Amino acid sequence: MAAKVRVTFLGTSSAAPTRDRGLPAIVVRREGHVILMDCGEGVQRQILEESVGLGKDLTVLVTHLHGDHVSGLLGLLQTMSMAGRKKPVDMVAPAKLLKWLDVTSDLLNVGLTFPIRFVPARPGVVLRYRDFRIRAARATHSVDAFSYVVEEGPRSGVFHPDRARALRVPEGKLWSTLQKGRSVKVGDRRVSPSEVTGPRRRGVKIGYSGDTRPSPSLVRFFRGCDLLIFDSTFRASDAAKAKERKHSTSVEAAAVAKRAKVRKLALTHFSARYVETGPLVREARKVFPETVAAFDGLTLEVSPSPG
Amino acid sequence: MAAKVRVTFLGTSSAAPTRDRGLPAIVVRREGHVILMDCGEGVQRQILEESVGLGKDLTVLVTHLHGDHVSGLLGLLQTMSMAGRKKPVDMVAPAKLLKWLDVTSDLLNVGLTFPIRFVPARPGVVLRYRDFRIRAARATHSVDAFSYVVEEGPRSGVFHPDRARALRVPEGKLWSTLQKGRSVKVGDRRVSPSEVTGPRRRGVKIGYSGDTRPSPSLVRFFRGCDLLIFDSTFRASDAAKAKERKHSTSVEAAAVAKRAKVRKLALTHFSARYVETGPLVREARKVFPETVAAFDGLTLEVSPSPG
Repeated sequence: MAAKVRVTFLGTSSAAPTRDRGLPAIVVRREGHVILMDCGEGVQRQILEESVGLGKDLTVLVTHLHGDHVSGLLGLLQTMSMAGRKKPVDMVAPAKLLKWLDVTSDLLNVGLTFPIRFVPARPGVVLRYRDFRIRAARATHSVDAFSYVVEEGPRSGVFHPDRARALRVPEGKLWSTLQKGRSVKVGDRRVSPSEVTGPRRRGVKIGYSGDTRPSPSLVRFFRGCDLLIFDSTFRASDAAKAKERKHSTSVEAAAVAKRAKVRKLALTHFSARYVETGPLVREARKVFPETVAAFDGLTLEVSPSPG
Repeated sequence: MAAKVRVTFLGTSSAAPTRDRGLPAIVVRREGHVILMDCGEGVQRQILEESVGLGKDLTVLVTHLHGDHVSGLLGLLQTMSMAGRKKPVDMVAPAKLLKWLDVTSDLLNVGLTFPIRFVPARPGVVLRYRDFRIRAARATHSVDAFSYVVEEGPRSGVFHPDRARALRVPEGKLWSTLQKGRSVKVGDRRVSPSEVTGPRRRGVKIGYSGDTRPSPSLVRFFRGCDLLIFDSTFRASDAAKAKERKHSTSVEAAAVAKRAKVRKLALTHFSARYVETGPLVREARKVFPETVAAFDGLTLEVSPSPG
């Protein structure tokens, strides 16, 4: 059975929050593993609001060291410590963040109850788990910045109950063993997964740009994403501001999505100057129709490509 | 005319936020001067929500260096910088906070656009303004901690229009000059303020305990407050926990209020374990009837004692 991957937007504003939008933070949930991408101020309340459990495997990915992307970290680490967390937290971030965490823990009496397994961000695979890995690439922003993809290994093929029945495999435990990719014994005969399932499928790939200008290297990095979450700070008419401040417009985000042949684009990191994101998403859809505008609390389910 | 002093609770939880309560932060507003007491995560959104303007005189008082009391500072300073603030911000806090601000500004690329006039917290008068001053006293907590009072100088007495008319002072500019405490010339005679106003009155005094155990020295420090805001992390049945963690129960807060002869007590900093604050405030009222339980968004107007 394919694991459900859910992406929830906790904060979709850019540098300053608004009444409706919190600072940047996104969670990817996959079989109890929570991947938090950026950690803006207010993230712990958003986590409560969206009922994201954190007693589980937790990985934090930080795109760059601007306050709005890390200002929720202190509160999050402290609250988990007060709850007595023991399990390590994995963290990928520009190296200086570790120094900040050390100084902050000391000066502000944080008293962490769990270890942080810190991986300095650099291009390439930064973390490997059993069923998925995390890769980083350089983004183009006013400070050292990284984009991330979360990508699953290949998933097992679709299970065909009719084939299993034809081979007299009794429904129940043996079916689920086959679905997990292991062969089973029926009478004195072995049945292998390939006899009852279709071909293995691509796993899910989710990309997150963080703050960045569009670039050909990011187009390559995000190629084939099932969901691409991209900087959309400005609308097209403010393209000069986007360029100056090293962000992207919604139309530039759409152009990346189109060139990278992703399946779906979610725009986020909207400047507080826009009360409505309608115009931004409409412009983007002319370039890439499968575009949505993220809002705080939006959850997208991401399933593997049928192809 | 007496300045209105308004106290707004931005966050009334203790160490961890809940769905309904943010981390500790309180604003005192007086004639456009904003005094922010503690600065928990999420304070900038609460400031938007309660329409507290920050383009004005701003003083930040930090009681102690636990994350939940300072985690909103980074975002607040950054947002004011993005808005191009030039006016200095006054700040009173334990000395180590300055080091944290320095390291944080550097590592997280904060880029402050305004100076911080930093006063290390110590017992006594820490800041003096034209019409009011701020005093600090040692609190009793698990780390170095301070309590604060904001106290106005004496206010001018009540203006009596009938006396002004009897002395043939024409209504308008001359009346307001007299109300401001300066004498005026009517014909060839001087009229002094004392001829048309009652006796000078005590100014408003507002006290904030921060995190603390109750103590005789705090009773002295808060004597005669018009409003006392006091640590009420626990209810009386959890008194042992309050003692162990160096906090107070609502009943202990009420006992301080009673002994200090304050006019009104606001309980705050409630442990996330209590869904309802009703029981805490009911217990406290048995000791000190003029008690309210603070909630996020509560505004109290504080006027000078009529006595």
